[in-house]
Amino acid sequence: MKIFAIEASGPVCGAAVMDGDVLVADYNILYKKTHSQSLVPMMDEVSKMVELDLKTVDAVALTKGPGSFTGVRIGTATAKGLGLALGKPLIPVPTVDAIAYNLYGTGSGRVICPIMDARRSQVYTGIYCFEEDTERFAVLHEQCVVEIEKIASELNSLGKQVIFLGDGVPVYRDRIAELMRVPYTFAPSHLSRQRAGTVAALAMQYWRERGDQCFVDADAFRPEYLRLSQAERERAAGIDTSQTIHRE
Amino acid sequence: MKIFAIEASGPVCGAAVMDGDVLVADYNILYKKTHSQSLVPMMDEVSKMVELDLKTVDAVALTKGPGSFTGVRIGTATAKGLGLALGKPLIPVPTVDAIAYNLYGTGSGRVICPIMDARRSQVYTGIYCFEEDTERFAVLHEQCVVEIEKIASELNSLGKQVIFLGDGVPVYRDRIAELMRVPYTFAPSHLSRQRAGTVAALAMQYWRERGDQCFVDADAFRPEYLRLSQAERERAAGIDTSQTIHRE
Repeated sequence: MKIFAIEASGPVCGAAVMDGDVLVADYNILYKKTHSQSLVPMMDEVSKMVELDLKTVDAVALTKGPGSFTGVRIGTATAKGLGLALGKPLIPVPTVDAIAYNLYGTGSGRVICPIMDARRSQVYTGIYCFEEDTERFAVLHEQCVVEIEKIASELNSLGKQVIFLGDGVPVYRDRIAELMRVPYTFAPSHLSRQRAGTVAALAMQYWRERGDQCFVDADAFRPEYLRLSQAERERAAGIDTSQTIHRE
Repeated sequence: MKIFAIEASGPVCGAAVMDGDVLVADYNILYKKTHSQSLVPMMDEVSKMVELDLKTVDAVALTKGPGSFTGVRIGTATAKGLGLALGKPLIPVPTVDAIAYNLYGTGSGRVICPIMDARRSQVYTGIYCFEEDTERFAVLHEQCVVEIEKIASELNSLGKQVIFLGDGVPVYRDRIAELMRVPYTFAPSHLSRQRAGTVAALAMQYWRERGDQCFVDADAFRPEYLRLSQAERERAAGIDTSQTIHRE
């Protein structure tokens, strides 16, 4: 099983290739270029470096959202294009799950809480752990968009040590200190952000557990934004957006 | 603080750039090309992709060994060249420590045991944990070269759950099953191998804890092989190696 993975849902842009148990290539940047400038050149770079014949790829993995609307669209469009051209399915991975899967071996005594800044005083988040003994990855609270106060309250009620990570950490660090009643730490920077290699590894894990049931046809795939874009919100509110250029 | 990190000590070849808390670029491959073919082109690629002015780099991090003799030499030569050209110091990181630092948040209830295949029935290994509550990275047994039986015995006597990782896992998986008397798991593949981004992050952590004391002059730096190369062993044993081409 060979997976080509794309990460473009947030500030990180990445491409990775996993072949069975081997992460053959993993290339990620966190830089001010837009993903439309970086993603395809990075995919091309890793393909050339590891002499990948794209026809041998079995599936294209990607983070299906949430995240930056523009980033999710770029990742989706690129993955769909690749999947359609190759005649291969996609394996969509929830963005927040993929961030949590940067860690391993925390056991059931700790929970993992990625937070991505969703603006408008909200975060994209979820709660995860690795089960005791087996260290199997488990989703305790599926990814969602909520106020930081709400997820902090839920974490406090669980009563376990929390590991925070994600691009929301620098934004909400002080607020977390005010809200938390249980011990917590922040994951170090090399494990705190989206990573294409992790997307590949989680997609491979899905395939091991569910086989072809984790596949989605490239033309049928729709990303998961978790909420409306600014333009859609304003249209729903009756605001005339026809003269406005939106960047989100 | 801006660190350029190089990983070439084992099967993985990698280059990474970390600027303060941000892992700006991280590119790793695990492919049959030799590091002499891949390393400098990968360093060039990431530098161009994130528009890095090498003159702004404050230090060059690298895994100082142990590992493949050829790989360690290539990494050392490249890091020395870069350090000397830029007039900047190196931050050497023990290879086994850097593999362990791929994990985070395991607490003191678990120990981390990287194993690298050192051939001749030996492994490069060490024992690590993240301290309870603070999750500070701690070295319980410094990196060393020993028989798998010896490290398994030490792990059994600690009585804690073990997380194994590293390229020695596929080689010693069956032997580990025979030897271990405590619960253990294997880290998933995206966290199991050397990674330049982790080398950068650990070097940055050294700098935060020790400041300039973690620096080594590029011309003074010597790698840490932990044992003699095959050629040196044969010379010591009085075997004429003048007609032999060694690959190790």
